[in-house]
Amino acid sequence: MKKGADYDLIVVGAGPAGMTAGMYGVRSGLETLVVEKGICGGLSNEAPEIENYPGFKKVGGMELAEKMKEQASEYVEIKELEAVKRIELMEKEMRVFTEKGSYLTNAVVISTGTKHRRLGVKGEEGFLGRGISYCATCDGFFFRDKPVIVVGGGDSAVREALYLRNIGCEVTLIHRRGELRAERYLQKNLEETGVHILWNSVVKEIKGDKAVRGVVRYDKKKEIEDELPVEGVFVSIGEEPVNELAVQMGIMMDKNGYIIVDKSQRTNLERVYAAGDITGGVRQVVVACAEGAIAATAAYNDLLEFSVK
Amino acid sequence: MKKGADYDLIVVGAGPAGMTAGMYGVRSGLETLVVEKGICGGLSNEAPEIENYPGFKKVGGMELAEKMKEQASEYVEIKELEAVKRIELMEKEMRVFTEKGSYLTNAVVISTGTKHRRLGVKGEEGFLGRGISYCATCDGFFFRDKPVIVVGGGDSAVREALYLRNIGCEVTLIHRRGELRAERYLQKNLEETGVHILWNSVVKEIKGDKAVRGVVRYDKKKEIEDELPVEGVFVSIGEEPVNELAVQMGIMMDKNGYIIVDKSQRTNLERVYAAGDITGGVRQVVVACAEGAIAATAAYNDLLEFSVK
Repeated sequence: MKKGADYDLIVVGAGPAGMTAGMYGVRSGLETLVVEKGICGGLSNEAPEIENYPGFKKVGGMELAEKMKEQASEYVEIKELEAVKRIELMEKEMRVFTEKGSYLTNAVVISTGTKHRRLGVKGEEGFLGRGISYCATCDGFFFRDKPVIVVGGGDSAVREALYLRNIGCEVTLIHRRGELRAERYLQKNLEETGVHILWNSVVKEIKGDKAVRGVVRYDKKKEIEDELPVEGVFVSIGEEPVNELAVQMGIMMDKNGYIIVDKSQRTNLERVYAAGDITGGVRQVVVACAEGAIAATAAYNDLLEFSVK
Repeated sequence: MKKGADYDLIVVGAGPAGMTAGMYGVRSGLETLVVEKGICGGLSNEAPEIENYPGFKKVGGMELAEKMKEQASEYVEIKELEAVKRIELMEKEMRVFTEKGSYLTNAVVISTGTKHRRLGVKGEEGFLGRGISYCATCDGFFFRDKPVIVVGGGDSAVREALYLRNIGCEVTLIHRRGELRAERYLQKNLEETGVHILWNSVVKEIKGDKAVRGVVRYDKKKEIEDELPVEGVFVSIGEEPVNELAVQMGIMMDKNGYIIVDKSQRTNLERVYAAGDITGGVRQVVVACAEGAIAATAAYNDLLEFSVK
């Protein structure tokens, strides 16, 4: 394929989705490049331990990312520390502009992921991976039988709370308002399962030694401050898709800013695909990888057709 | 949840999809059982070496399946050698009848996979994993620069041939008819890439020593038989979904017999999900695992709602 372009496929973002897309791209015979603004691994680097990635009983998030990077690098070039600034759609090819130069490509996979909305309080950064988590499915199992708080009031916060309660954590939900935004049935379930709720409250500080030992809570209504002894703090005040490129290119997104894809990970733009957390859905490493594989496979199939035209 | 039932979730089939669904089910707090008619691993057991499962540079299909089994077994009970005969939908629960008994469950994941249509010729079984393959994406890389044949004439056979040609194999396509069934653009591509086609021909026997060395080809039109020296035989005469249960339960399938699912792996029946190859799509281990994770997550979310009703 290739012909006029520098590459058949450029993958933007080297989390699990992007690395897998890169590997599958090259293995299909596509000249592929992966470009990453930071380092490989994406949010999986934040998971202290992953127990539910099939094939590994227990693996550090960074370790798994490192393995994937080594494996992908056997096939595909991955340029780290090179942010993509914009992508220009031309008549046939696309031009990918980075901090360091530009590349002409026949197809693009957007796998720029999401970032957690942070609380922005004292202690939050320091205890990351030592009691602070942004994902109950990832880390909840380490907190069975322990007191934890979930911060948030939407669907995902309530799901996180229920998940943690269900696996045996002692759960308190802290919400800044006087009522939850979450769906009714989730709320009803929450009441039944004995999750304690602290209304009109915010976390002001996270305290501990080697790990989290408690949080300072401020009750906005009563205007009092107290300290809660907890070992886990699950922050669930939202995710933010990293969608600047999608916006710039005119890719269709849902109301939350996640890229809309079909079953083959195609976006509304021809030969532009998206994979991983940027597409929403179940945010698990194995799901991101699968989407990367599917996106590259779709790119390969579409480019076969493209090169015939 | 549970209440009247024996289980919250029963997973039928312990390939990569089923094992992952089982693990995710239990990790969500669902009382889960996995039932498998044979042994764990499904079709992945047939892949001699897998190089594209993210996290493993190179792993035997059986070895990967074994790892997944060990990991899943830390959470979920897997009953091997227990075929499910039928599943009866009741007013709320479902009853799963196996060779050995029956279980009442609130939800079911169908992950019964597919089986390859076989050529049914001499040598086929014996050389499995030693030159006979049913998946170019899985095994093609081992045959770079080597002469291989692809048997078949449909889309997937042509895709297999193109894939193999693209990575550098010397490819001959053998088709029993005088023209291909494959899409036009695939055929055009095939012509351009220099894949040799033997029309009106069938493979009568596969020969070799420790590995495949050739095939006996019969030209039905000319009524002659000759021997082709090849090292790889890629059989692509179709997959058959193992869909007897789906048929019996009234699950909606596409025209090829694959189960139709939504983005959360839900079927048309309430609290019945499907994952892995039985749903069609890109047939890769990582994709099956992801679908298993998504299906169990959907089951968990739906059962939360179900238990409130």
